[in-house]
Amino acid sequence: MSNEMSARLLLDEEDTVDAVHVTSSSSTVAILGSGDFSRSLAMRLVACGYGVAVGSRCVKRISPGLFLDAVELNSQEAAVAKAKSLVFMALFPEHYPSLLGLRSALAGKILVDVSNAVEMNSKRPSNAEQLAEMFPDSVVVKGFNTISAWTLQTGAQDGSRQVLLCSDSAEAKHEVAQLARRMGFYPVDVGSLCCAQDLERKPLQLFPSWRGPVLTTFLLLFFFYCYGFIRGILLPYIAYGQNSFYRLVFDLVNESLPCVALVSLALVYLPGLFAAWLQLWRGTKYQRFPCWLDAWLLRRKQLGLLSFLCAALHGVYSLCLPLRTITQRSLINSAYSQVKSGAEMPWDEQGVWRTDLYVFSGVLGLGILSLLAITSLPSVGNILTWREFTFIQSGLGYAALTLSVMHTLVFGWNFAFSSQAYAFYLPPSYMLAVALPCAVLVCRCLLLLPCVSARLARIRRGWESTRRCPVSQHHRVRVNTTVPQV
Amino acid sequence: MSNEMSARLLLDEEDTVDAVHVTSSSSTVAILGSGDFSRSLAMRLVACGYGVAVGSRCVKRISPGLFLDAVELNSQEAAVAKAKSLVFMALFPEHYPSLLGLRSALAGKILVDVSNAVEMNSKRPSNAEQLAEMFPDSVVVKGFNTISAWTLQTGAQDGSRQVLLCSDSAEAKHEVAQLARRMGFYPVDVGSLCCAQDLERKPLQLFPSWRGPVLTTFLLLFFFYCYGFIRGILLPYIAYGQNSFYRLVFDLVNESLPCVALVSLALVYLPGLFAAWLQLWRGTKYQRFPCWLDAWLLRRKQLGLLSFLCAALHGVYSLCLPLRTITQRSLINSAYSQVKSGAEMPWDEQGVWRTDLYVFSGVLGLGILSLLAITSLPSVGNILTWREFTFIQSGLGYAALTLSVMHTLVFGWNFAFSSQAYAFYLPPSYMLAVALPCAVLVCRCLLLLPCVSARLARIRRGWESTRRCPVSQHHRVRVNTTVPQV
Amino acid sequence: MSNEMSARLLLDEEDTVDAVHVTSSSSTVAILGSGDFSRSLAMRLVACGYGVAVGSRCVKRISPGLFLDAVELNSQEAAVAKAKSLVFMALFPEHYPSLLGLRSALAGKILVDVSNAVEMNSKRPSNAEQLAEMFPDSVVVKGFNTISAWTLQTGAQDGSRQVLLCSDSAEAKHEVAQLARRMGFYPVDVGSLCCAQDLERKPLQLFPSWRGPVLTTFLLLFFFYCYGFIRGILLPYIAYGQNSFYRLVFDLVNESLPCVALVSLALVYLPGLFAAWLQLWRGTKYQRFPCWLDAWLLRRKQLGLLSFLCAALHGVYSLCLPLRTITQRSLINSAYSQVKSGAEMPWDEQGVWRTDLYVFSGVLGLGILSLLAITSLPSVGNILTWREFTFIQSGLGYAALTLSVMHTLVFGWNFAFSSQAYAFYLPPSYMLAVALPCAVLVCRCLLLLPCVSARLARIRRGWESTRRCPVSQHHRVRVNTTVPQV
Repeated sequence: MSNEMSARLLLDEEDTVDAVHVTSSSSTVAILGSGDFSRSLAMRLVACGYGVAVGSRCVKRISPGLFLDAVELNSQEAAVAKAKSLVFMALFPEHYPSLLGLRSALAGKILVDVSNAVEMNSKRPSNAEQLAEMFPDSVVVKGFNTISAWTLQTGAQDGSRQVLLCSDSAEAKHEVAQLARRMGFYPVDVGSLCCAQDLERKPLQLFPSWRGPVLTTFLLLFFFYCYGFIRGILLPYIAYGQNSFYRLVFDLVNESLPCVALVSLALVYLPGLFAAWLQLWRGTKYQRFPCWLDAWLLRRKQLGLLSFLCAALHGVYSLCLPLRTITQRSLINSAYSQVKSGAEMPWDEQGVWRTDLYVFSGVLGLGILSLLAITSLPSVGNILTWREFTFIQSGLGYAALTLSVMHTLVFGWNFAFSSQAYAFYLPPSYMLAVALPCAVLVCRCLLLLPCVSARLARIRRGWESTRRCPVSQHHRVRVNTTVPQV
Repeated sequence: MSNEMSARLLLDEEDTVDAVHVTSSSSTVAILGSGDFSRSLAMRLVACGYGVAVGSRCVKRISPGLFLDAVELNSQEAAVAKAKSLVFMALFPEHYPSLLGLRSALAGKILVDVSNAVEMNSKRPSNAEQLAEMFPDSVVVKGFNTISAWTLQTGAQDGSRQVLLCSDSAEAKHEVAQLARRMGFYPVDVGSLCCAQDLERKPLQLFPSWRGPVLTTFLLLFFFYCYGFIRGILLPYIAYGQNSFYRLVFDLVNESLPCVALVSLALVYLPGLFAAWLQLWRGTKYQRFPCWLDAWLLRRKQLGLLSFLCAALHGVYSLCLPLRTITQRSLINSAYSQVKSGAEMPWDEQGVWRTDLYVFSGVLGLGILSLLAITSLPSVGNILTWREFTFIQSGLGYAALTLSVMHTLVFGWNFAFSSQAYAFYLPPSYMLAVALPCAVLVCRCLLLLPCVSARLARIRRGWESTRRCPVSQHHRVRVNTTVPQV
Repeated sequence: MSNEMSARLLLDEEDTVDAVHVTSSSSTVAILGSGDFSRSLAMRLVACGYGVAVGSRCVKRISPGLFLDAVELNSQEAAVAKAKSLVFMALFPEHYPSLLGLRSALAGKILVDVSNAVEMNSKRPSNAEQLAEMFPDSVVVKGFNTISAWTLQTGAQDGSRQVLLCSDSAEAKHEVAQLARRMGFYPVDVGSLCCAQDLERKPLQLFPSWRGPVLTTFLLLFFFYCYGFIRGILLPYIAYGQNSFYRLVFDLVNESLPCVALVSLALVYLPGLFAAWLQLWRGTKYQRFPCWLDAWLLRRKQLGLLSFLCAALHGVYSLCLPLRTITQRSLINSAYSQVKSGAEMPWDEQGVWRTDLYVFSGVLGLGILSLLAITSLPSVGNILTWREFTFIQSGLGYAALTLSVMHTLVFGWNFAFSSQAYAFYLPPSYMLAVALPCAVLVCRCLLLLPCVSARLARIRRGWESTRRCPVSQHHRVRVNTTVPQV
């Protein structure tokens, strides 16, 4: 084999290489910049057997001990000269023009641009493309911008080991990919340099998949809060001059939260039902769902976690009820009235069963919801098989929904049948909230009917109702041996 | 090097390859089927630099945009013809007979069977073996069936990156292993095609290691619930006609849950004590434990988590006590009696200390149990060293057990010495429940005695009592330089 | 290519190799010892295609079925003879002298020392160095000592895949690294054999980064408990003979915990403010922080989690207040006094708003703190981008701090202005505790001023005030094209 190939083989096989065995020109990487990223990158490259030369504008002001001894600190030109081919640009993009003087030194080298975008909706070209314009004799590879300095230092054990690379040159990408692989990362090619803008915006994302669910939850909360305010505080004030504004802080919140939790939980299971009925209607699973249904199906986990958060807050607020001055006052005044009436408080069997039942079902439902929340954690969710995950998220999920509906209906008891409930012709908010979950449960039970569920199972295993698939003549000749239809 | 070898080297080194540099016949993979798995697999293979040809029965009905542009959609024969050697069978196994017409086209190719079993206890041969029978001229490799479409798409960052492979042909396994490695997975050889049935059943497993503990917990709950029902509701009803059936929903549950939690927590630490005493008795650590003890030792985490769940539910139910109509009624009636007797409620120093102490110890014990539960999470448990893990699970675990026993004993206070406790000659359920934990704690203290613990430590570091190991003559000659015994 | 190189290539490419294809001498590894580690290591090596020969002092006593069938059980000499070059020393270090008889058999082999240190602060040389002294003709590589038997068995899917290696010989390290890589681990070279002592002590570490924060929390708890004891129990007892010692168990704890939580939470955000003001003062971000500030910045997560633990315990204890005999007694006696005075309890608008507000803000603050705690979990924290992580830990963190301060101030209400608060000239502990958080919030608001925040943002993007950086003549010539200084 040639020397070049043998050196490459050695590099491939030897992750941990004694400096003596490798010629210096084959494994020195230059890093321009001396901040946190530069320091962590240098540390990692040295641990993987590379020589590292850090170039800084102002070598004297780098604190001694900031970099490892094995790292050589130079001026920028010296560092670039020492590099075999890779030069990391660990500076902020606004400082790129300061390197224009190095254009000749950087000619023929591979510049790795690790910067991120400054703002999300910029009309300017990406940092990588600007760098490529400034240094037309060098090759620019965009990469490592989603890796934080901390991950570089600790070695990317868990979480994201993916390094996204893009460049116009395949050889440059290949070389950077080799380096990434040796550092313990997993390089992924995303295309040419025009993809750089997407890469640069990636770390600026702020929970993109949570926006819809959070907005939905806030809208529901706002709706139920205003509804409760109008029905319970404003209208009585206008009608009877009754001052219940103290209810704003606690009571209204503790009435709205469970309604939001109920409706959110129903919204978690509703798209699954839409999808099932759509597949039954179409008779096939191979047609795509509408965009809005796809997006909704992808947000189910976020909706579920928000529902759990509201339910847990409602639980804690309810447990705080005995701490309030109001509760203590009402207990004391009940005792006072009892004494005034001269008899003990009578035994209310219905009341006893009612509170015991709705507390029991509420706590159990919240307990099951917390199991669902725990299995949503990445590390737990990943050790479950698909069947286990479905058992919990679907099976236990519907159990939680049923218990929550039971909790609300028992809380309401026979109140719905008394005229007192419909003050100002408006039902209590929990009666509004429990409508959708009941509909979801009824719909799910319909899907359990043998004929319906059997047909759905067949569709999900690839069967298609014959009127959907225009089988060609050619196919009909081929498959007339056995055709598993129906 | 030969061309074949050089191409292979390039494939090994180059994860991200520009299509121009690689001849099309060396990296095209065919996928038969066009469902979710096929789509995700195609996406991943394209990202890793492979050419992909998807073959479908009915090309026209595949929605435009379902597959990436880089993926070629063909009829099944055309796709198979384009493949170099690998053909993924991304269809449900009941559709395999429909491919019999492709037998000649598939001759000499490697068929990768990614299907799972339909049911757990089938007597029929595995899908892979049936496929091998149908296509005797092709080689069948079973693999990727434990990887979900989602993991393929997102890239298997966390969790299971293992791809289990089995086949009768080593070269075929090797080629699929290379592909898996390039996709970022870690291939593991599990043997020949007769292992396929185990592989196919793996994703159908439903918490195999939780069955024993969940069954144990349910049996304990059932036992304590029935015991409390008989002692607290049924016998008083039969004896005095007292109607306490309202206690079924809440009180009985809140009495049974802590008993189950106590006994489960004791069951977590009991097998460790058995193991220690067994090692002390045998004088060696090299003999295997009985099967039941091995199985019990492997279920300790599940038992502990179930104990924490019961304890947490008990805590929440206890916090709900003031919300119940019953509690409010009894408070009001106490106030009424107080007024009737004409004096304030006297200061009960013992009662005050008792409730404060058992609430304090209960909450602290539950808090420590939650620390144990958190360190049972995979991601947290994995960053702990063995010493840290033992400190928490063993050290803090015994602290939680001690606090729970203290909580129960203080709750009982001196009630055990009054005859009232033994209604119908049956002690309260918490007295039954606290027996085993006390025994466990006493046993653990015995193990702390210096002589016992020193001997156990020696045994665990490899020492064996001499009567156990029949040292051969040959050994005795060899090791007469130094023999570290005792 | 030579035979040696071709064999190596085959080994590199073929993870799953049929025994027939590989000569036995090229892939047999010996393991001396037959405990848990030996068994798990043998299992893993067989799964990766190596031949394994286990050597034991006493082959007869190894239970049948303990090792896989594929593993050959031999005497120690036979096992060493079968090994190609790697011999794992899976024994406890005190047994190394028993192998001195094998010195000639082990000559020229690579001994992999997997032992850990027995104690942290030993003055003796490391086990690896002692082994190297005993066997001067063999090469010793220290490695795999941080990998537990369990990780070997299950395959190191999550968590630590890093295998730290050190040795005086680069070729030996390279060979062990290859083996580690094939087993699915990620080998890291940490240097020569003198580093072995650090490696051996690593698994003995017991939460090194938690010691400072736990000590701080305990000191704060001790301080607030003693302060409350002196102010609330001791001084009234000395002054008025008032016996409130029952308050020791519950009340004092429930007063100290929130103070500790408040101060700890403030201590989480204080170092960030110090760092910001330091950077503003110095005009650069390139100077290192003082050691104490660096250490403090690295402990913020631990301080935050301890603060959350104290806050959660305070929350649960507060919810337990209605369960206490004291609370019930005071309610009943209030009712009694009410009856005695002949009037209902008056409506206290201020009291109602006060309790509702502080309960509401307390619960919401605790809810936000739990969100912070959840994102501190490794698996959750790793899927967040840097911007998302900062939004939660910094943005929501300050929101939680604000709500906690509000909770405390509303709880105090106008009590601070009454002389009753200053019993014995000592303010209530919560007034002491709320001082530091208020200072932190004020300081943070100062940092939000436009001029200050703009300057800090510039400094953090690499700008330096000119008086800091003595730019060399050479540099000035080079960069006079464009210099982005402001």
